[in-house]
Amino acid sequence: MKAIVNVYLKQGVLDPQGKATHHALNSLGFDGIKDIRIGKQIIIELDGLSKEDAMKKVTQMSETLLANTVIEDYTIEIA
Amino acid sequence: MKAIVNVYLKQGVLDPQGKATHHALNSLGFDGIKDIRIGKQIIIELDGLSKEDAMKKVTQMSETLLANTVIEDYTIEIA
Repeated sequence: MKAIVNVYLKQGVLDPQGKATHHALNSLGFDGIKDIRIGKQIIIELDGLSKEDAMKKVTQMSETLLANTVIEDYTIEIA
Repeated sequence: MKAIVNVYLKQGVLDPQGKATHHALNSLGFDGIKDIRIGKQIIIELDGLSKEDAMKKVTQMSETLLANTVIEDYTIEIA
């Protein structure tokens, strides 16, 4: 079972990496970009669990370690 | 228009960030994890472009700046 956790900064939290990328793309001649935000994508391969149990486990992992919930949000997809 | 670029290390390229996360989760008591890989998710807000043009532009951005195609693969979703 494969779980994908996307972790990104909450709306309103400054994203310097995104800002730098935005600036770099502009310098390279790419225009028409309104905003760029950069997050992490964590792909976890889990051993034999039901979809529900996997969701529960990965939510726990996200709360404990993968995301800093003070400044970050996360979404989980189980595939 | 919103484009999502997922950039991740090619299969076979060592992912130390993933390994460290795997180890940390094990230390916290999460078992049954086979593998963890960590990539970047880049969310780009683009000004009025057709879906096709957006795809073309974001592919160019990925090849030029967002991904290091020697060691990284990327996927693009236009939403």
